[in-house]
Amino acid sequence: MSADARFKEAASALGYSFDGELKIGGNYVPLVRDGNVLYVSGQVPRVGTTVVVTGRVGTEVTLPQAQLAAKVCAMRALAVLRSELGSLDNVRQILRVTVYTQSAVDFTQQSEVADGASELLHFVLGEAGKHTRTSVGVFQLPKNASVELDLIASARQS
Amino acid sequence: MSADARFKEAASALGYSFDGELKIGGNYVPLVRDGNVLYVSGQVPRVGTTVVVTGRVGTEVTLPQAQLAAKVCAMRALAVLRSELGSLDNVRQILRVTVYTQSAVDFTQQSEVADGASELLHFVLGEAGKHTRTSVGVFQLPKNASVELDLIASARQS
Amino acid sequence: MSADARFKEAASALGYSFDGELKIGGNYVPLVRDGNVLYVSGQVPRVGTTVVVTGRVGTEVTLPQAQLAAKVCAMRALAVLRSELGSLDNVRQILRVTVYTQSAVDFTQQSEVADGASELLHFVLGEAGKHTRTSVGVFQLPKNASVELDLIASARQS
Repeated sequence: MSADARFKEAASALGYSFDGELKIGGNYVPLVRDGNVLYVSGQVPRVGTTVVVTGRVGTEVTLPQAQLAAKVCAMRALAVLRSELGSLDNVRQILRVTVYTQSAVDFTQQSEVADGASELLHFVLGEAGKHTRTSVGVFQLPKNASVELDLIASARQS
Repeated sequence: MSADARFKEAASALGYSFDGELKIGGNYVPLVRDGNVLYVSGQVPRVGTTVVVTGRVGTEVTLPQAQLAAKVCAMRALAVLRSELGSLDNVRQILRVTVYTQSAVDFTQQSEVADGASELLHFVLGEAGKHTRTSVGVFQLPKNASVELDLIASARQS
Repeated sequence: MSADARFKEAASALGYSFDGELKIGGNYVPLVRDGNVLYVSGQVPRVGTTVVVTGRVGTEVTLPQAQLAAKVCAMRALAVLRSELGSLDNVRQILRVTVYTQSAVDFTQQSEVADGASELLHFVLGEAGKHTRTSVGVFQLPKNASVELDLIASARQS
């Protein structure tokens, strides 16, 4: 099964579509390519015009909800990569993922939140989805999002 | 008009000079070059020896003040790039910008703060200033700065 | 003296061994290589199975303790690089270091915390240890770690 088919399967499992235009504001762009290195902008768990998981993880938001948010962020990042590369099978490797969790005081399961994103990347991309990762707990995120994720990837030679 | 002329125009509009020595402490450096990729250290809105915008955004600091802080951080990063490349016209592309905002509880306009930096980069560099971006709200920043910004850029082949 | 010998000397000075398997969880990896660029996952100050410095810096944890934590994180990152490259003498340059400090409200010495890591990298690697750096104060870190550090490095041509 292709990475693109697994992407569709993951979207179905989440119950969201990631096929529309990914909204972005201001003088920045969803992706910049430098040779075969691809930088993807920070993604909040937005579907269409709605941020689907908001609030502070550990009080207002549970760990499973935050893991879902991380998956949605990862799907958005994959959608950006697919849009650039035509197919997710052209991803050579995910190089670096940073996962920011809007955390309650004393919430220390930022790694477990990020596992949601890591599992999804591995499910869709297989070996190409193995990545380095940094997980931190921040005080606030744009639009009160519970999770934000950015990544750097490499593309197969084209 | 050259990117360098627009840099001077932006400095005039901000009312600050960015021509002096950029102070930096410790065993790290303002810029490291790896081939044509340029990594620039995190910049707080310091002019000379003074951090010009300090405090928590949303309570002590307003959105317009924070946007000004983001612009000053971006100017400092550009000054570092200019110092390395001789001219800002040698910037091929800004690849990645991360903007950290020292945020009050419930302040969720981190993207709007970062727009200050994005607008300035676009003003000075034009198309080369388009970048990917991550905006997060952190709890504290060095020297009580309201905003910190780092970036990765690429240089034209030399 | 080789970088590897200085690594051992630094380990002795800290009183910790960094020779064991570096534990990592989930579908991510300690290091990904893209050409000569090496991405290292975020490191908390874990030795064996214990995070040796936990809590909020500025109240529960002092600056010297946090600097020690930053050194341990940096040693772990070096251990990951050594494992990949065979010898730390094969590190060409540390390109980018990001240091996240779990901060108390009003704690503003994140740069001083990060100095612990910068000094250690310079001690072990010499000129190759000079890097760009970003220091921020976050609200929470995984496993209640006081400090987390990630880095990007380049390897000598092989």
